[in-house]
Amino acid sequence: MTFPVVGMVGGGQLARMTHEAGIPLGIKFKLLSDTPADSAAQVVSEVVIGDYRDLDTLRDFASGCDVITFDHEHVPLEHLRALEADGIAVRPGPDALRYAQDKGAMRERLTELGAPCPRHRIVRDVADVVAFAEEGEGFPVILKTVRGGYDGKGVWFVRSEADAADPFRAGVPVLAEEKVDFVRELAANVVRSPHGQAVAYPVVESRQVDGVCDTVIAPAPELSSELAGSAQELALRIAHELGVVGHLAVELFETPDGRILVNELAMRPHNSGHWTMDGAVTSQFANHVRAVLDLPLGDPRPRATWTVMANVLGGDYPDMYSAYLHCMARDPQLKIHMYGKDVKPGRKVGHVNTYGDDLGDVLERASHAAGYLRGTITE
Amino acid sequence: MTFPVVGMVGGGQLARMTHEAGIPLGIKFKLLSDTPADSAAQVVSEVVIGDYRDLDTLRDFASGCDVITFDHEHVPLEHLRALEADGIAVRPGPDALRYAQDKGAMRERLTELGAPCPRHRIVRDVADVVAFAEEGEGFPVILKTVRGGYDGKGVWFVRSEADAADPFRAGVPVLAEEKVDFVRELAANVVRSPHGQAVAYPVVESRQVDGVCDTVIAPAPELSSELAGSAQELALRIAHELGVVGHLAVELFETPDGRILVNELAMRPHNSGHWTMDGAVTSQFANHVRAVLDLPLGDPRPRATWTVMANVLGGDYPDMYSAYLHCMARDPQLKIHMYGKDVKPGRKVGHVNTYGDDLGDVLERASHAAGYLRGTITE
Repeated sequence: MTFPVVGMVGGGQLARMTHEAGIPLGIKFKLLSDTPADSAAQVVSEVVIGDYRDLDTLRDFASGCDVITFDHEHVPLEHLRALEADGIAVRPGPDALRYAQDKGAMRERLTELGAPCPRHRIVRDVADVVAFAEEGEGFPVILKTVRGGYDGKGVWFVRSEADAADPFRAGVPVLAEEKVDFVRELAANVVRSPHGQAVAYPVVESRQVDGVCDTVIAPAPELSSELAGSAQELALRIAHELGVVGHLAVELFETPDGRILVNELAMRPHNSGHWTMDGAVTSQFANHVRAVLDLPLGDPRPRATWTVMANVLGGDYPDMYSAYLHCMARDPQLKIHMYGKDVKPGRKVGHVNTYGDDLGDVLERASHAAGYLRGTITE
Repeated sequence: MTFPVVGMVGGGQLARMTHEAGIPLGIKFKLLSDTPADSAAQVVSEVVIGDYRDLDTLRDFASGCDVITFDHEHVPLEHLRALEADGIAVRPGPDALRYAQDKGAMRERLTELGAPCPRHRIVRDVADVVAFAEEGEGFPVILKTVRGGYDGKGVWFVRSEADAADPFRAGVPVLAEEKVDFVRELAANVVRSPHGQAVAYPVVESRQVDGVCDTVIAPAPELSSELAGSAQELALRIAHELGVVGHLAVELFETPDGRILVNELAMRPHNSGHWTMDGAVTSQFANHVRAVLDLPLGDPRPRATWTVMANVLGGDYPDMYSAYLHCMARDPQLKIHMYGKDVKPGRKVGHVNTYGDDLGDVLERASHAAGYLRGTITE
């Protein structure tokens, strides 16, 4: 056995951070990226520029790799099945990825498994939406295109029948879900390898602003050990039953009566796991690489009492370097992770991690740095 | 100000790990490497293949960089002065680097500063060596070529007059030093930026086998806080007086009567600082990058009670992948850092870090992994 080649499809920040984690592992890392300016393409030595929707491009790329994995979930399943038929190891494989690509299939499968989900139904038109609402608590309801959504895109908060027509315009099947009355959002992140080893990270709290992840707190404060344990067990069971290989993020709602419901699945390193880069013994990126290579997994336990991750979004200033210098001077313990992306308002261009024993302090330091980099805090 | 370009001369593992540390910082990293197979050239996107001894090559390389720094100390000083005359920021600069390149100049300057050094003298021939020995405790004495040595190369342990001729054959000036009676070797590592900010890492114990660093323990066990403090102060003073920018390793002898003497200086990230990658809030590589960019420095404090680094040397087996898998399975907390280098007997091809509260356990885990990877431990 020699040190293998991992091919990652997609050149975003997840690929950038996976490459970073792969360097100490001594593996060779190849990237299939849309453009040379993509976040990961800036820092990886072996980059193929090409379109992941083109099977020939994928085949050429995969021929030099021992395993193919993903920065995103958009590669057509039929292409992945063709690669598997060619003898390429595709991890996670298409049989698992279909549940990350199709929210309707995901809800159906999770319900079969007895995993707690919001009430849901595939709807064909506005009349279906009205019927779905009336069978429950009425409006509002949530409508989602079954494919292609992320970070609040492809999701509609529908207050009345009059709002319900928009989601149907794209011609993609639409999933209706009850508006869950939740106290907060959690994420249970696990990593699973082909030989069935799996590790569970501490359950985290994820705070959203305008549908985009703002802050992640690890571990989730004041979460009972029973609920944390059942969230971890649920995520491990989903990974096992769906045959996920690599990192699986299970986004959850915690309800006022102390239950959890599955919100979304992501079968790749995930924003809710970025805290692990500085806060866990083994980061989600290192464990994702180890999993797709069927190497023994690393310890997922936290290294600090509290770790907080705050996303850095683009603001009005196109260059963050001065703010970045200021943040380093203010907090010598701050861990900054920049993605090399052009700043656009609202775009995720980096994140910061802080850790320590005092949650208030750790939260303040992360929020201050993220706000200062964005330009919403100026002192 | 925009995110700058750091150019590193030399494609070894120090450059590889500097690139890894630069990715989250969002800087652009360019490499001047001897060959595309070099450790860092395998993982960096922007690599120029060329000879660092050629001024035109250096000039071309430097023209696209905001600052030039080094993986090694072998770039001719006159070339660095030429780059500075062109307006390039060279960090550390030639006025500092001359003391890392020339052990004679280093001893002279440190003695002027009152830094404690072994008794030493430039010697021209065997008669000089005999005279030097007789003025002290007699043989053995240490002879060193003033330039080009590392990892025990260029260093002779001379037991008698009959052994003393060899070092003169290369035609390089030779430095004689007393054989210091030391209880152990220490290293005081500091990082200094152009605006004069400096941080000191905990003083570490460095254990050598056959003249090559085998294990580093952070912090050095049972070192009095007085001696640790004076070692840190000494290293900070040397960095200041010599105008070092970036990481400075001061290798030290601890004597039986509780003094420290300066053994060697290295003006770059250093093997005795590899433990910081997993054991300190900010690694030596991240702080080296921050320093050469004149960014505020990161916290150098340890994250664990004990961190141990063990070098992985090549053994008889050319492929370590099976052993690597075994080590991951045995110790899920083990941090492996492979350099992507071909295995040759005795060559440094990686290192491992372990950390925890029990030094015996931490040492055993690191030594076991390094020995298993080398092939000297088989169970």
